[in-house]
Amino acid sequence: MSPDEFRRYGKQVVDWIADYLAGIESYPVRSQVRPGEVRSMLPAHPPERGEPYENVLRDVERVILPGVTHWQHPNFFAYFPANASGPAILGDLLSSGLGVQGMVWATSPACTELETVVVDWLAELLDLPFREDGVAGGVIQDSASSAALVAVLAALGKTDRPGRIYVSSQTHSALEKAARIVGSEVRVVEVDPETLAMDSAQLRALISEDVAAGVRPALVCATIGTTSTTAIDPVREIGAVCREYGVWLHVDAAYAGVAAICPELRWINDGVAEYADSYATNPHKWLLTNFDCGVLWVRDRRPMIDALSILPEFLRNQASDSGEVIDYRDWQVPLGRRFRALKLWSVIRWYGAEGLREHIRTGVSLAQRFAGFVAADPEFELWEHHPFGLVCFRPLRTSAAETLALMERVNDSGVLYLSHTKVGDDVLLRMAIGAPMTTAEHVDHAWQVIRDARGVLGQSR
Amino acid sequence: MSPDEFRRYGKQVVDWIADYLAGIESYPVRSQVRPGEVRSMLPAHPPERGEPYENVLRDVERVILPGVTHWQHPNFFAYFPANASGPAILGDLLSSGLGVQGMVWATSPACTELETVVVDWLAELLDLPFREDGVAGGVIQDSASSAALVAVLAALGKTDRPGRIYVSSQTHSALEKAARIVGSEVRVVEVDPETLAMDSAQLRALISEDVAAGVRPALVCATIGTTSTTAIDPVREIGAVCREYGVWLHVDAAYAGVAAICPELRWINDGVAEYADSYATNPHKWLLTNFDCGVLWVRDRRPMIDALSILPEFLRNQASDSGEVIDYRDWQVPLGRRFRALKLWSVIRWYGAEGLREHIRTGVSLAQRFAGFVAADPEFELWEHHPFGLVCFRPLRTSAAETLALMERVNDSGVLYLSHTKVGDDVLLRMAIGAPMTTAEHVDHAWQVIRDARGVLGQSR
Repeated sequence: MSPDEFRRYGKQVVDWIADYLAGIESYPVRSQVRPGEVRSMLPAHPPERGEPYENVLRDVERVILPGVTHWQHPNFFAYFPANASGPAILGDLLSSGLGVQGMVWATSPACTELETVVVDWLAELLDLPFREDGVAGGVIQDSASSAALVAVLAALGKTDRPGRIYVSSQTHSALEKAARIVGSEVRVVEVDPETLAMDSAQLRALISEDVAAGVRPALVCATIGTTSTTAIDPVREIGAVCREYGVWLHVDAAYAGVAAICPELRWINDGVAEYADSYATNPHKWLLTNFDCGVLWVRDRRPMIDALSILPEFLRNQASDSGEVIDYRDWQVPLGRRFRALKLWSVIRWYGAEGLREHIRTGVSLAQRFAGFVAADPEFELWEHHPFGLVCFRPLRTSAAETLALMERVNDSGVLYLSHTKVGDDVLLRMAIGAPMTTAEHVDHAWQVIRDARGVLGQSR
Repeated sequence: MSPDEFRRYGKQVVDWIADYLAGIESYPVRSQVRPGEVRSMLPAHPPERGEPYENVLRDVERVILPGVTHWQHPNFFAYFPANASGPAILGDLLSSGLGVQGMVWATSPACTELETVVVDWLAELLDLPFREDGVAGGVIQDSASSAALVAVLAALGKTDRPGRIYVSSQTHSALEKAARIVGSEVRVVEVDPETLAMDSAQLRALISEDVAAGVRPALVCATIGTTSTTAIDPVREIGAVCREYGVWLHVDAAYAGVAAICPELRWINDGVAEYADSYATNPHKWLLTNFDCGVLWVRDRRPMIDALSILPEFLRNQASDSGEVIDYRDWQVPLGRRFRALKLWSVIRWYGAEGLREHIRTGVSLAQRFAGFVAADPEFELWEHHPFGLVCFRPLRTSAAETLALMERVNDSGVLYLSHTKVGDDVLLRMAIGAPMTTAEHVDHAWQVIRDARGVLGQSR
């Protein structure tokens, strides 16, 4: 494709995306297709001859869109937000267009240095103590899962395995996956039944028991904003235990960490500056930067680099040998790297700190509005802890199966999209607010739809 | 950013990329900046207020471009090609614009099903036996490193660790990294000094020795087209050893695998259909699909899914429970997934099998042209094995340090960009041809520049 063909088709694609985003409310939020339906509309064999790009765009419309669940839809309330934004899409487009491979500094210095700068910017915005100083520093990963794996590897070190990993029942499954990958055993610490926060006293008991048994405690994962209900572990208390036993503290703030951009939410960082050895948050969730953009910071890069660095001859170069540069390949599992910093840079510059704070505040305020509706309705029970954009709740006098049926009915309608979780034996519905297009009207309407579905359920009992 | 602002800025970015690609030859191939230079031109602190996107574009031009090494430049001959193409950029743009999260089928069915179809298409194009049939199948990973890690995890299984991993001295460092991550020991098998192909007799001896010692041999990695010199391991012989001892055979064809799209190069697949348990190749290297797009196929998905699947409540859904769908999150380390299939689909449709074969053939033919120049010049020695787009060579009567100095001089000039490798004590220069804009004139000119640099070296001795 020549540059001029790219120019022509590129503008068609930009128009297509602009139209898509402008008209996104006309689609059912959750795709309505059945398993195999998209596949059955695609040819089983690749084309022998090339086709004009119009054909691809036509099939995006005809075949792909019906199979898309619209994560950017203002009525998408499932999981956590994973929001794109104009500047993020443009930053990603610049990255694709430049097509550089940033595996080491020398293969594209700007890819490394812009990344160092923007993760420093983000650390400053979130008031985190990990700005690049030759020891501490941050890196963009594809996800908090990969960040957790890197933290686990750094904590284990090269030789001293297997060490043990401590999580709570509310910790993201990524930690169990990381532990399984490295062959470490996981111990699950109890949580407070009201707040679902990790019980630091029990953590201390388990660690002390393990140490007495000759097992090395390697890493504790504390979560700020769990995936299930956005519970917050007591980082300060957990950190004190980690300090006492020389255990690596990883803080997984994948969803909620970015909320610290607002001074009034900065209390979530309590204990992080004093105790965290590594900290991860995902701008690709609630900070308008499309997937993939997870940031991992470490207090001391050396154990991580010791764990991950291998220098084959073909990557040797003067800049790396000089020690003056960062080679981010040693901060991650894969070797290759896209120029992901461009999208985070675009987002921070377009919105500014001010705009990003406004975005978070809107999410929190809409969540409070929704929580108010739930609290006021005698047919529903509100999960009390909802400091961010997620509100968990459940219909009363309803079995778990009926609650799930209610959710399926709502989701099947295409009008909005919720997900669920389980706390003990209770199924809770999760209303995660945070899409930039979501307004009070969308939230009000969502509540109406949910109440109506509850009503239908009530009649059919 | 509103859809209409996106429309306006998006077209500016498309124009900027089209202009960049049209004028790419005006830039020095390898960035000329010194460590810290890009960073020093960027503000140390994030902006409080948002800025117009024009500011970002202006700084891309002013700050970023000087720090970019132009991987898309027709005179980029270092490492391996990592080529973007118009349709791939557009596919990635569509992915960013849709902003879907494809972690499980239900979160966007088209993301999963298009991926299944395009990796099937690619398997057909490359004549690989891994088309989706409920047991075999393929998945897009970010890189061959991650693919290798997944293969290692599948081979080790959940309980039976540590198993041992066998590589050659020429195997990519990703395997050593994967082994280190999982805590397995690596044994390095000798290679034939002429071809650098793994010695399957010594592999058998090592495995047999390990089995006798009670160590479990878990995985052998055979490479088709090593990173250093594109050497080819005898997959059939290695496979027979693996079969005999019940060892997982992973084939790493990261760079060269895509060459099998040409019938005349399909001999590289010898033994794959009979013996490979997993196979990885990267369309993001030599198949015009920008990074990241590595494809991993497995003969039997079950050991991989057993190793990687964890099902937290928040991901439970009817489609997954039904067993009728693929959830690719269980085929990779991270949970989240971009809609990467769109770019590979775009590339295959735009070029067609015909266009892709033409692209590979051009690379091979230009490499042969260059090899002819080297072979005919008494000042240089040609590395004889160059079946693909990479030609290794070295100036004669030159120390390793002088050879590297020659390379640095050429690279510093900005006219072209080479990399190097070591075989035994010899430093070889690597001329990797494969960028879509590279023509015979570029190759001829590169040879002239290299010869001239050799001449200068000769005079200064």
